[in-house]
Amino acid sequence: MLSTMMHTPLTLSHLLERAGTLFPKSEIVTRMPDKSIHRYTYADFYRRARALAEALQRAGLQPGDRVATLSWNTYAHLEAYFGIPVAGGVLHTLNLRLHPTDIAYIINHAEDRFLIVDDVLLKLYEAIKGHINVEKVIVVPLSGQPVPAGLTSYEDFLATATGDFSYPDLPEDAPLGMCYTSGTTGHPKGVVYSHRSTILHSLGSALPDVLNLAQRDVLTPVVPMFHVMAWGLPFTGVMVGCKLAMPGPHLDAVNLLDLYESEQVTKTAGVPTIWMGVLQALQKEPTRWKLLPMEMVVGGSAAPEAMIRAFDAFNLTVLHAWGMTEMSPLGTVSRVKGNLADEDADTAYARRASQGISVPLVDVRAMNENGAVPWDGTTMGELEVRGPWVAASYFKLESERDKWSADGWFRTGDVVTIDAEGYVKITDRTKDLIKSGGEWISSLDLENALMGHPAVREAAVIAVAHPRWDERPLAAIVLKEGMSVSAEELRDFLAPKVAKFWLPDAIVFVEEIPRTSTGKFLKSQLRDKFKEWSWE
Amino acid sequence: MLSTMMHTPLTLSHLLERAGTLFPKSEIVTRMPDKSIHRYTYADFYRRARALAEALQRAGLQPGDRVATLSWNTYAHLEAYFGIPVAGGVLHTLNLRLHPTDIAYIINHAEDRFLIVDDVLLKLYEAIKGHINVEKVIVVPLSGQPVPAGLTSYEDFLATATGDFSYPDLPEDAPLGMCYTSGTTGHPKGVVYSHRSTILHSLGSALPDVLNLAQRDVLTPVVPMFHVMAWGLPFTGVMVGCKLAMPGPHLDAVNLLDLYESEQVTKTAGVPTIWMGVLQALQKEPTRWKLLPMEMVVGGSAAPEAMIRAFDAFNLTVLHAWGMTEMSPLGTVSRVKGNLADEDADTAYARRASQGISVPLVDVRAMNENGAVPWDGTTMGELEVRGPWVAASYFKLESERDKWSADGWFRTGDVVTIDAEGYVKITDRTKDLIKSGGEWISSLDLENALMGHPAVREAAVIAVAHPRWDERPLAAIVLKEGMSVSAEELRDFLAPKVAKFWLPDAIVFVEEIPRTSTGKFLKSQLRDKFKEWSWE
Repeated sequence: MLSTMMHTPLTLSHLLERAGTLFPKSEIVTRMPDKSIHRYTYADFYRRARALAEALQRAGLQPGDRVATLSWNTYAHLEAYFGIPVAGGVLHTLNLRLHPTDIAYIINHAEDRFLIVDDVLLKLYEAIKGHINVEKVIVVPLSGQPVPAGLTSYEDFLATATGDFSYPDLPEDAPLGMCYTSGTTGHPKGVVYSHRSTILHSLGSALPDVLNLAQRDVLTPVVPMFHVMAWGLPFTGVMVGCKLAMPGPHLDAVNLLDLYESEQVTKTAGVPTIWMGVLQALQKEPTRWKLLPMEMVVGGSAAPEAMIRAFDAFNLTVLHAWGMTEMSPLGTVSRVKGNLADEDADTAYARRASQGISVPLVDVRAMNENGAVPWDGTTMGELEVRGPWVAASYFKLESERDKWSADGWFRTGDVVTIDAEGYVKITDRTKDLIKSGGEWISSLDLENALMGHPAVREAAVIAVAHPRWDERPLAAIVLKEGMSVSAEELRDFLAPKVAKFWLPDAIVFVEEIPRTSTGKFLKSQLRDKFKEWSWE
Repeated sequence: MLSTMMHTPLTLSHLLERAGTLFPKSEIVTRMPDKSIHRYTYADFYRRARALAEALQRAGLQPGDRVATLSWNTYAHLEAYFGIPVAGGVLHTLNLRLHPTDIAYIINHAEDRFLIVDDVLLKLYEAIKGHINVEKVIVVPLSGQPVPAGLTSYEDFLATATGDFSYPDLPEDAPLGMCYTSGTTGHPKGVVYSHRSTILHSLGSALPDVLNLAQRDVLTPVVPMFHVMAWGLPFTGVMVGCKLAMPGPHLDAVNLLDLYESEQVTKTAGVPTIWMGVLQALQKEPTRWKLLPMEMVVGGSAAPEAMIRAFDAFNLTVLHAWGMTEMSPLGTVSRVKGNLADEDADTAYARRASQGISVPLVDVRAMNENGAVPWDGTTMGELEVRGPWVAASYFKLESERDKWSADGWFRTGDVVTIDAEGYVKITDRTKDLIKSGGEWISSLDLENALMGHPAVREAAVIAVAHPRWDERPLAAIVLKEGMSVSAEELRDFLAPKVAKFWLPDAIVFVEEIPRTSTGKFLKSQLRDKFKEWSWE
């Protein structure tokens, strides 16, 4: 027996048509490189995204051809997000914070055919152009400076379209976009999202219990559009038809807060480092900005509980989400369930600081040497995930099969506990766990506890080889400006919070913690620095 | 180039596992036939739905076999909603309000193999059993009376399961359930939903701009589970993990209001007739029930604007939705968009009384003899829809191909206008339009205008043959108890609201308007009654 339902493919053209027909008046606002505001509507966006699609086809784009972007969060990048895939092309967002050598590697590995680059990033293009071979470079004139000879102006390129565009028929499994993970070891690895995975991810993301994104919201993705598709928010936002306020290259706290105030932003998303800066600016001038109640999605790294508490005082609600490039990226989100509404405030904050529960269509399990661990909140295992927006392989990298289990789940590399309510809590990265005397110590738990001390700005804990215990924890501490605390005081502060054998034997004070291009602690570099540490 | 994403099928087993693992403590409450309350949790539901699936397999269920239900909205029916499809069976919900002859026809046409029936509906089963041939009849003991000899008790049937159940691998296009439309002409026609269409419909339904259903909601589907799968709410509710409060067979206003109060319901759904009763009960005893702010989804027939206004006074928000059995059923929902928030109150109410804008993944267009009509709010055309939860055919009925356009859109039979903001407004059913002197008159608009008069409880307008104008409108009016108004007064009331040639030449007062089993006006019967009308 067969279903009688239509086999309508889930493709991005539906979302673009929806945007153009149902939400023509919704605004898209961009802070430009010179800090002025560029403002237009979905009607303009719709027309220009389709023009880009047509221009690409006229330039010879074939289904599956990669079109790279080297761009900030702007209206033009949003046009690329839709115009490239609806033409059958593959949107390949390049992380402009990577070293030029890595960017060139990624462009070559992905075999990008076209490249769209912001004019304010042409210096970066200059650094890579000798190492890549793309057919056409299209320059988005954001700053007004003339486009260099030999390159194509994005506006001139759009002008080659006649308006007579019709969507190619694409199967829903057709590739839509690709991102490379900026791992800390080895070459970057690429994943290829499909139209289907992106549509499903958009539906899942917008749900009330997930990001809760509605047409009436005003959304500012601070997370860069070159970082896991800005967590899919450009697609999700356009699907619901909400106003978008794009920060352009200006990600500092004051420019963000000004944008939140002037555009009446209700929903924003970014990494903890960004929110730390915003919090400090608010605490310094608590009455400067008149903000609406706003939900701030935090991901990329764990948000310290202290930060969640501090923002609540400003009527700004931090929503903790967890995901990975390989997961489009959304995996879990931490809202307090109805049956837990009566828990005390401390427990509720601990929940909100956890990674939360899996979103619809994503399955999670934590595996140790005995198989799937019980959901008891204490047994640790490596988090594995499965779902229609999770990668099943890396692009052109068959050697990486050990990132998937024998039964096809993606192995995240995160060590977690899962409690009886399904709340996932990351205790460490597999490679960052500290194994002391046969027992596991969570570097993340220690870091979070240390960051609860008023004098501590940042803390990173690593394993250092130890003659007796195999490994012991070392904590690297960045103090807040003008504050001081001793190692002994910090150990006393930790003592009531963690098991005795977890207490770091070494606490060292440093100027800063090395970070990856996406703001995560670069612990491999710390481990290198302290590998010759001599225990007393 | 291929996407690297997993090909995870969208199947109901994911939702059931999600319910059992993430929301074991969420409650499912049922008002039983004797009005007592049955209360258990998702943990119980999960265990019993899987037991049903296993028992069906042990009884020989093969993939695609139909299992019919003849049941009210209860915990047991919810178990069938999940247990049957996850076993590979097809959930076939029978409309118990149809004539036994029609029910028997439907069972035979669908080739149902098993039948689950509430014990309080055994009388109905007795009326059809001589005309059907099902292998096993399973009786749900809701009332405590003994199960008749030769039939199987549902509880005994569940007890045949050992707990050792594993989900069969199903492709996402596998059939999940079927419903027959109770049309006013011809035999009932069946559609077969797939696992994919149901999962997508659940995601789309829960979105903030659609039904906005969250884990913290308490949901009461008043719309029967034998009527288009209760608009998919049992699936959507379980997906988000919210508490469900089921009314059982007690759909009268007082029992519903008692349930809303005692279970703290925040979201409910039903047809306008139900809400009319609830409104009257509230108006009669405005302080009797302490209700939470609640959103009341109305569908099945158009909600009069006056009803929307009246409920607002009780802090109860009517949300107008439109759909069809052939659409799973959700097509449009009427929320006021952000850019329209400043419209005056009357305009806002008119929007909320319209069918609203299409939900994500559903495309709409209105067609007349010149093709797709402009979105100008005035040009009428037949509404056509397309999307992954819309039927592409009827089950075993190739003769009905004219219900689909040549390019594959479903022709809804509703005549609509669409305005520049995308709001769809049904002006009539194609078969109910009145053609007077070559011009169209909307019977629905006349009915809505008439129902705005304080003395009018219900109004149905039909076309009656006319020697000069081809057709002219006749209005059949049901007055409110103790109220009176003359035909002339009603015409005066209408005059400023509609074109002069729309004014009904005949206004007749009747005791009641004949209705279909799903509460819609049965205009064919009215037309029969008045077909010999002699114009003066």
